[in-house]
Amino acid sequence: MSNRLLVAKPRDRIEDLYRQIQKAQATDLKALGVGELLGELYAECIAVTGGYRRVPLATAIPGKTYFAFENRTGKISRAVNSDLYKPDLEAWDRFFTALRAQELSDLTDSSITQVVYSAAISFCAVIDLTRQGDQKTPGTYFEYLIGHLFASRLGVNPSTRLPILNLDMSGNLPTDYIFDLGANRPKYHLPIKTSTRERVIQVWAHQRVLDGVYGTGRFLGTPVVMAETKNAQRTRTVTEICLPLQWRLYQMHISQLKRVYYLDIPAAYAALTNEFPPIHVRPFGLFFLEAEELAKT
Amino acid sequence: MSNRLLVAKPRDRIEDLYRQIQKAQATDLKALGVGELLGELYAECIAVTGGYRRVPLATAIPGKTYFAFENRTGKISRAVNSDLYKPDLEAWDRFFTALRAQELSDLTDSSITQVVYSAAISFCAVIDLTRQGDQKTPGTYFEYLIGHLFASRLGVNPSTRLPILNLDMSGNLPTDYIFDLGANRPKYHLPIKTSTRERVIQVWAHQRVLDGVYGTGRFLGTPVVMAETKNAQRTRTVTEICLPLQWRLYQMHISQLKRVYYLDIPAAYAALTNEFPPIHVRPFGLFFLEAEELAKT
Repeated sequence: MSNRLLVAKPRDRIEDLYRQIQKAQATDLKALGVGELLGELYAECIAVTGGYRRVPLATAIPGKTYFAFENRTGKISRAVNSDLYKPDLEAWDRFFTALRAQELSDLTDSSITQVVYSAAISFCAVIDLTRQGDQKTPGTYFEYLIGHLFASRLGVNPSTRLPILNLDMSGNLPTDYIFDLGANRPKYHLPIKTSTRERVIQVWAHQRVLDGVYGTGRFLGTPVVMAETKNAQRTRTVTEICLPLQWRLYQMHISQLKRVYYLDIPAAYAALTNEFPPIHVRPFGLFFLEAEELAKT
Repeated sequence: MSNRLLVAKPRDRIEDLYRQIQKAQATDLKALGVGELLGELYAECIAVTGGYRRVPLATAIPGKTYFAFENRTGKISRAVNSDLYKPDLEAWDRFFTALRAQELSDLTDSSITQVVYSAAISFCAVIDLTRQGDQKTPGTYFEYLIGHLFASRLGVNPSTRLPILNLDMSGNLPTDYIFDLGANRPKYHLPIKTSTRERVIQVWAHQRVLDGVYGTGRFLGTPVVMAETKNAQRTRTVTEICLPLQWRLYQMHISQLKRVYYLDIPAAYAALTNEFPPIHVRPFGLFFLEAEELAKT
């Protein structure tokens, strides 16, 4: 399996920008420079995906339509939600300007979700069509993107390990991104996944370890997920893989997540907000509008 | 990625036996016939691996030595523990005869562990060297092998879903193998993995869901793992990836596993038996000698 991008100008540029982001985020994830690089990368991805054909995908999911990008060999990308995909660099700039100024109230949560989804899915689609079997790069990119946005909104960089000092035990606990807002304020526990499937139980389990080691209520679990879509390459049909009964059992018996944010939110999970006890599954754009509220309730 | 075996007589026979086991176990995992097919498959794997060269692997793990099988293209298999690997069909037959008669007290736990390890690792090595990037077949085979042995020892077949009837909720919970010994007796919860790494938290989390939904103490969590070795193809060096501090936190804060059984037990985990509170990490062979005891304590 070769993970090297094909030799072609815009793809070289994408590879180069990805490496720059990788380097810059390691020093300072919330830096303005990381956001600028993410914007440049998005622009390149729009240029590359503009050269692909769009093929409609069949789906039985009510109220959603999907397409895929297709390259010259007939290979198709992952599913792209037609209503969410709006490649628009001006919308990206408006969002980032508002984010930098922390003046987000003029934006709607759906417009923010569209901006983030469009950037994320266009990079993932380019990787799908230029690298063979590379699942890792889209996942890592998505962590940088969401991590940068979260860090920018909260104004602090995350850590990925916490000290354990527990009577006769000591050491460090490796974690997903943890954002520490300081004394007497909540800490955010932010797992980031392009999709969850049966691995999602890890998110509740990690939350439980944090609750157990440091005390219940100190960490707000707010995982961010791109989508739960799966498209069959052969039949060109999109399905969503959802396990709402399991989620309810995890929320009741393992730990309590504060929110689960999605870019392309599955209806079966959105409905959990209306069950009792509820699981608050929301579009990711809403985080930017409710972040302060979240820390108080 | 092609998963088809190369066309060669013994390999065709291995593919054919694997498919027969797959079919037979779906109807009756503990059937004598499944054990006989597993024995035939083991014999074929000994024949195939006998044709490979054995190359020593470097390792810094104290007290263990490893080698790998190497095919004609210079590709090497996963690491094989030299002390545990004893390809011996007579030892296999002695174990199975004792298992069928439930008269295991003349065997030692280390001799049983050797028999099971030798069968498991020889199949995995053949797949490593005949299929490109196939991680799934060794994992599925290992489930059949361990599942058959567990079912034979307990005398019941497992299920992989449990009914949920919880006030206003109803449905089925998909699970790893669950062995139900009947009223007033424990049920065994048996996750089976060729290695665990960071995914191991799922085992404790699933145990917690069972404890929460059905009551603590009703299910004995007894995962079975092959090894935690990782060998670098280039440097030909074996390392063990162990997270003992995390395991202790999971056992304290998520749920309590009754045993963790290994074929090639890592020293860092075996040592957890001597910590307080202990996690009982044991060689798999011991299960066959302590199964009755386990259900009482």
